[in-house]
Amino acid sequence: MSAIIGIYSNSDVSKKLFYGLNSLQHRGQEASGICVYNEDGVVLDKGNGLVYDHFDDSSFERLSGKIGIGHVRYATANKPHVYNAQPLLAFAKGKEFALAHDGSLVNDEALRQKLSDDGAVFQTAIDTEVILSLVAKSYDGDIVEAIKKTMDKIKGAYSVIMLFDNKLVAFRDPNGFRPLIIGESADGDTIIASENAPIEIIGINDKVRDLEPGEIIVVDESGLHSYHHGDVKRQHCIFEHVYFARNDANLDGVNAYNFRRRCGEVLAKEAPVDADLVIAVPDSGTPGAMGYAQESGIPFAEGLVKNRYMGRTFIKTTQEERELAVKLKLNPLETVLKGKKIIVVDDSIVRGTTSRNLIKRMKEAGAEEVHFRIISPPVKYPCYYGIDTPSRKRLIAANYSIEEIRERIGADSLAFISMEGMLSASRLEEDVFCKACFDGNYAVWPEESDEV
Amino acid sequence: MSAIIGIYSNSDVSKKLFYGLNSLQHRGQEASGICVYNEDGVVLDKGNGLVYDHFDDSSFERLSGKIGIGHVRYATANKPHVYNAQPLLAFAKGKEFALAHDGSLVNDEALRQKLSDDGAVFQTAIDTEVILSLVAKSYDGDIVEAIKKTMDKIKGAYSVIMLFDNKLVAFRDPNGFRPLIIGESADGDTIIASENAPIEIIGINDKVRDLEPGEIIVVDESGLHSYHHGDVKRQHCIFEHVYFARNDANLDGVNAYNFRRRCGEVLAKEAPVDADLVIAVPDSGTPGAMGYAQESGIPFAEGLVKNRYMGRTFIKTTQEERELAVKLKLNPLETVLKGKKIIVVDDSIVRGTTSRNLIKRMKEAGAEEVHFRIISPPVKYPCYYGIDTPSRKRLIAANYSIEEIRERIGADSLAFISMEGMLSASRLEEDVFCKACFDGNYAVWPEESDEV
Amino acid sequence: MSAIIGIYSNSDVSKKLFYGLNSLQHRGQEASGICVYNEDGVVLDKGNGLVYDHFDDSSFERLSGKIGIGHVRYATANKPHVYNAQPLLAFAKGKEFALAHDGSLVNDEALRQKLSDDGAVFQTAIDTEVILSLVAKSYDGDIVEAIKKTMDKIKGAYSVIMLFDNKLVAFRDPNGFRPLIIGESADGDTIIASENAPIEIIGINDKVRDLEPGEIIVVDESGLHSYHHGDVKRQHCIFEHVYFARNDANLDGVNAYNFRRRCGEVLAKEAPVDADLVIAVPDSGTPGAMGYAQESGIPFAEGLVKNRYMGRTFIKTTQEERELAVKLKLNPLETVLKGKKIIVVDDSIVRGTTSRNLIKRMKEAGAEEVHFRIISPPVKYPCYYGIDTPSRKRLIAANYSIEEIRERIGADSLAFISMEGMLSASRLEEDVFCKACFDGNYAVWPEESDEV
Amino acid sequence: MSAIIGIYSNSDVSKKLFYGLNSLQHRGQEASGICVYNEDGVVLDKGNGLVYDHFDDSSFERLSGKIGIGHVRYATANKPHVYNAQPLLAFAKGKEFALAHDGSLVNDEALRQKLSDDGAVFQTAIDTEVILSLVAKSYDGDIVEAIKKTMDKIKGAYSVIMLFDNKLVAFRDPNGFRPLIIGESADGDTIIASENAPIEIIGINDKVRDLEPGEIIVVDESGLHSYHHGDVKRQHCIFEHVYFARNDANLDGVNAYNFRRRCGEVLAKEAPVDADLVIAVPDSGTPGAMGYAQESGIPFAEGLVKNRYMGRTFIKTTQEERELAVKLKLNPLETVLKGKKIIVVDDSIVRGTTSRNLIKRMKEAGAEEVHFRIISPPVKYPCYYGIDTPSRKRLIAANYSIEEIRERIGADSLAFISMEGMLSASRLEEDVFCKACFDGNYAVWPEESDEV
Repeated sequence: MSAIIGIYSNSDVSKKLFYGLNSLQHRGQEASGICVYNEDGVVLDKGNGLVYDHFDDSSFERLSGKIGIGHVRYATANKPHVYNAQPLLAFAKGKEFALAHDGSLVNDEALRQKLSDDGAVFQTAIDTEVILSLVAKSYDGDIVEAIKKTMDKIKGAYSVIMLFDNKLVAFRDPNGFRPLIIGESADGDTIIASENAPIEIIGINDKVRDLEPGEIIVVDESGLHSYHHGDVKRQHCIFEHVYFARNDANLDGVNAYNFRRRCGEVLAKEAPVDADLVIAVPDSGTPGAMGYAQESGIPFAEGLVKNRYMGRTFIKTTQEERELAVKLKLNPLETVLKGKKIIVVDDSIVRGTTSRNLIKRMKEAGAEEVHFRIISPPVKYPCYYGIDTPSRKRLIAANYSIEEIRERIGADSLAFISMEGMLSASRLEEDVFCKACFDGNYAVWPEESDEV
Repeated sequence: MSAIIGIYSNSDVSKKLFYGLNSLQHRGQEASGICVYNEDGVVLDKGNGLVYDHFDDSSFERLSGKIGIGHVRYATANKPHVYNAQPLLAFAKGKEFALAHDGSLVNDEALRQKLSDDGAVFQTAIDTEVILSLVAKSYDGDIVEAIKKTMDKIKGAYSVIMLFDNKLVAFRDPNGFRPLIIGESADGDTIIASENAPIEIIGINDKVRDLEPGEIIVVDESGLHSYHHGDVKRQHCIFEHVYFARNDANLDGVNAYNFRRRCGEVLAKEAPVDADLVIAVPDSGTPGAMGYAQESGIPFAEGLVKNRYMGRTFIKTTQEERELAVKLKLNPLETVLKGKKIIVVDDSIVRGTTSRNLIKRMKEAGAEEVHFRIISPPVKYPCYYGIDTPSRKRLIAANYSIEEIRERIGADSLAFISMEGMLSASRLEEDVFCKACFDGNYAVWPEESDEV
Repeated sequence: MSAIIGIYSNSDVSKKLFYGLNSLQHRGQEASGICVYNEDGVVLDKGNGLVYDHFDDSSFERLSGKIGIGHVRYATANKPHVYNAQPLLAFAKGKEFALAHDGSLVNDEALRQKLSDDGAVFQTAIDTEVILSLVAKSYDGDIVEAIKKTMDKIKGAYSVIMLFDNKLVAFRDPNGFRPLIIGESADGDTIIASENAPIEIIGINDKVRDLEPGEIIVVDESGLHSYHHGDVKRQHCIFEHVYFARNDANLDGVNAYNFRRRCGEVLAKEAPVDADLVIAVPDSGTPGAMGYAQESGIPFAEGLVKNRYMGRTFIKTTQEERELAVKLKLNPLETVLKGKKIIVVDDSIVRGTTSRNLIKRMKEAGAEEVHFRIISPPVKYPCYYGIDTPSRKRLIAANYSIEEIRERIGADSLAFISMEGMLSASRLEEDVFCKACFDGNYAVWPEESDEV
Repeated sequence: MSAIIGIYSNSDVSKKLFYGLNSLQHRGQEASGICVYNEDGVVLDKGNGLVYDHFDDSSFERLSGKIGIGHVRYATANKPHVYNAQPLLAFAKGKEFALAHDGSLVNDEALRQKLSDDGAVFQTAIDTEVILSLVAKSYDGDIVEAIKKTMDKIKGAYSVIMLFDNKLVAFRDPNGFRPLIIGESADGDTIIASENAPIEIIGINDKVRDLEPGEIIVVDESGLHSYHHGDVKRQHCIFEHVYFARNDANLDGVNAYNFRRRCGEVLAKEAPVDADLVIAVPDSGTPGAMGYAQESGIPFAEGLVKNRYMGRTFIKTTQEERELAVKLKLNPLETVLKGKKIIVVDDSIVRGTTSRNLIKRMKEAGAEEVHFRIISPPVKYPCYYGIDTPSRKRLIAANYSIEEIRERIGADSLAFISMEGMLSASRLEEDVFCKACFDGNYAVWPEESDEV
């Protein structure tokens, strides 16, 4: 999982990219990068850590420019190296290409193999390099054609932003798995990003819309140009709306806040329980908890205090230190919880370890009963489209019944929303969503990659 | 405003101090410092910035030790220099003293003058140095006597933690203006801190209580020793409970969360208004908003999204960049606000600029009406006891009527809780609180400093 | 110009690579990088600045491993970006390749074009990537064959070190333009580096020899294997021995110290002048000055004091600040120079600006006469093999007569050693050297690149 | 040992102080600090490490100002803490004092005791704070009087620079133990520093002279004012001229370069030996080696190559790593040394460990014989005036005969210059020097401190 952003402006974009990436930091804390065009050509600065930790004043001096793109990356167990950070650069056909990507290809390995057989040499371990290579190789004077050829080959989830030839370029897979949204200002600036938060914060928002699945955008001196390619079949990741996006996200017709709140309402009907209070696991669980509270008539309360100041982590921590760091993030409010029967609303259960830890600490803080309510169905299948879910072995719901999960996490009761309930809360047609992590129906099968 | 912390332990305290300070970072983001005892004697590391930014792995190596204290400091306009960071050290009478302080003396200037006349030389601009000097000068083999003599001279607000002679020492002014709380573990560790959050997070909490006003604590090999000094007259800062402390604070008999929530309930009765939604200015406004919502029956909703990743600031920002940074902190949820009549609950109004900015952005996001409700009375008087309120000229409520304030901040209606209402929500006797910022009744007059 | 180093050892190499690169820092101060093999696969850490500035303790933790390579790069006007730093990585044929290079290809552009036409995409602007791509593309199970195929295609100067498949690999162009030297210890460690200094300092020096021109070395579990490829025609860069290498260098049969000293002796015979003292421009001018002094009988003295502590540079310096920084490097010793006729021996004159500046400051310090003596002939032609000489327009000797140069730099007299004199001082056959910067005879023409 | 610098200028001094301190870095590498006056009052920035490592661009922004002072400190075993870094600040009598000091008081302890008894509290462990306290306490409207009163109390070595009341102030003890030199420019700038190098480099050198022993300088708007105080008895540290100062130093009538060279000449007469080459231990041994070579007729050669790029050190180094770091500093030139009888000229022998290490490595590099010649007499007594010599137990010459030292360091012969020889080389009267480290005659006895 990642966030991407690109800005085409009449004025310097380095700090706008920086603040924009900061507003998307929830989508990735491991590495960050910014790349701009200026009189020195393409200038790139990337490295490990939060955007606030990596960039400093001298970065902004170097990164001055009027067109730029940026990226933040989620921690992924097997690819932590800096050379896997984005954006990536390519020099080919006498041109400079810079590219950043959110999503995941299902035929990455097959394409790498084929490109390798044709003589390609890769310098990173990420599928982004496959996309970049294909675009650059396919380029023959027309960037849109190069992208179309690339889209014909790559399968899976990709929302992509590029710098090319003094243009800002973006494209999104025909399933629209991962979000991508564009804003324009009356005075001619354009911004494209993974969520709407940076668009509103930076204020390039006189006109805002999602990129269509299969849409290609080119912004240059002559304005904004839109193209379409591929067989569109909407498969917007529903897990984005459940968990990943900010509460203020408005993506592909779903308002995250409203959706989560309505899921809570549905859940209150589907899985009522007698209790004193409804509390949320902040931040993505909060709207759901409010919806549950409203529907059930049980008061909502804040029972977990979140620490606002968390920065980089440190090496060689002992087990005790690791526990300290965990406790810092969320502190149960004894005064709220003590002697009470509590309904806790969270967005999802993946491994179950966080839930178990949390329930244990809430009980230590005096909660008499803890009833766990989840605004998404059990996650039983891995995601091949960019959400960093673990293998099935580690997915608790793939291996245990709901009653077994309940016992393992130590809850007094446990309920997940039904698939139908969740879908009804979206107010959209069921078939616009990818729900593969819940039902295993993958629109684009990883196995298809063999056919490349 | 500051936070202080001290730990006396059987094991290394450097990372515990670090995480403890981190949980108190809301009380001060400008500078931080940690001081420990180890085989090298007193080791001190302090500097500007967040604790996460200043300390690194090599810090912890240097700061290993089993007794230590720490401090974070709020940004104050006129004292930003590193040499004003705490803890401070003193070498006197063949001993090493390290001291950190939260609060503010009212007779700092007079004492400095007197000490200067007697030949003292100061190396910082902070009143903490006056306390340190007096303790060190008064020391004659008995640290408790030295502290008592010091307490006889200093007037105002002081919660103090010291390292001295392999002891952890703490004392609190006889009015108990600023909080100070102590935790002990069954296995003999002791922690003293400005709030209870680090006590719970670090887990030295088998026995937890406030230091009494006028109490002196000495922890050494032989255990914990308590002394009392001064004419106790409780004057706990009510603004701590309104705004400054974390929502999970439990200080001097007031539970911040419950207090703020009940203030909201009272306010709903005192200043009802017809509206669609109640929203909070997070985080300290949240319980109040919930209370208001419950009492009024108007639904609570989350209407402002808070950015979780804010780090150090950067130099030479333009006005545009400054605005970007402000917008990043709180983003109005258009989907919640649009077309709605909104009640916004906040903890206080000091200058009024933040409120004006917020209301403007909420209206831009589509809020039809914005009714501002404040869970504290108008702040009309400066604080001399450690809260960094501006001079009366800048206190909006000292200069304008409520109707004028309403107009200036752009609200459709504005109401403050009554003094009686707030006090009733505390469930304590009125006279245990310092409410001087609201009513101008200063228990310890700054003018008294002349008499030193 | 760069330095490269590689170590194959029984123990951790991270700090050895670090100290080794430090001893080669004179060959490049702009960027540095280290790459090792360990259980995480290939780990790479590179960035701008001196090795002492870029690496810290946490780097060494990450870079632990028993095989590794490193690189430092000279400041080059048009390629300052971090993405041009080395080592470079490649993933191809299921293998990881890491490569670092000193030298310069003459057919880089043609090869890039051809590889691009074949579909290659480049991610940097350096010819090193062409070498890496060719090796990776040519690899078909036998790394030596892949290198041979690569050597058949690339023309120019290349001393290369690679990590591949738990092997340390190195190869040198058939002309041996740039140095490359190998050391082995009795207990089985191997080191390969641009100069002998790290070999001696790290102490893997029981057996030390130059790589032959056209030699390929592979070090793995089974020991050290040597192969040869290409038509060997020795063309060792004589400018290495004149200026670039450390005074303790012993490369390709030339001992830098002895060579420089004998050049000074020859120069004293070829261009005698009556004077009081001989002084050197340290450090590479020192042996020449000593030789001149001994041969002429005029006493050698130290007339310029060198600053030992120079670190990274700072942005936005004014002209005054830039001059300060220059003055810091060398300070004329007034006491030595005052009222004296001085012979100054330097290694070379390229642009002439440093000489002019130096002579001006020596005269300000009281030198009555300054006679400049250069232990190399006039540099009239650009280098295509890795020395970062400017274009002919900026080469003072390509545009002015010796008398004109003398006038421009402000010397009282000026003499360069003759080509014959310099060659006789080398004690080797003339034809083993590349002297193209002096005589324009390029053994490998850039134009040949068209034929690729 | 330390270096101090102060500048009073018409323009910004922050970078001048930085570059000036850099040129004095040989006098102290452990900590550095700069303090200036500007509109924010006194601004101070200090910390551990080289000036190049501690200060960055943002430092210079903060440290802008037209009057400033700076300090670098030598590593001292027992006082490594940052709070011992200089300059120190004092706030007293409504004024700000900033002070930096080179030297060492002999009655520090007694004064501390007395000041403590009078109620002073110290915040550092350095005698500088005693000087600062006394000046501040003695101040009664006239800074010169305050300094005179201070000078009446403090005994020992002190060269001091202060910022006070928009003035640059300096004073030097009546013995003139440590150097202090002043430069003025035609356009009204003034610089005071420990050596002349920064004066020449920064270019405030139209008029340059030593401060007299007992001289007090005040520079303010009205110009430069000089005062004198105390019973002048010149006791200039001869070890400065032997070892500590740069080769370009010109202090108190001694030119370091000429002095060292003449010492070499004298030594050649006093302790001749048959050999092939004279080599120097750079940098302070170089002029002596040249003098020895000239007098003896044995050729001078460069036999040790010095590494130019040494930065900060790293934690947790193994013995092997420590040896690597040592080897990096000086590399023996095998080509020069092999099979040769070598005379090595060094400035002094203190512990003997460096000499032993060096001789061992020279023999490994093939030197047949190594004859050690020292341009100073045996160091038998500790220094109480600021040179960080070890206790007598660790001074090899205090415990062993010359023959025993020779055997321990592994030299084939060993000779020290005679006291008379060294003094004759100075061309000054014997009684202007402090030679206590050689002869134990302390002009100001530490024992006198009891009398304070």
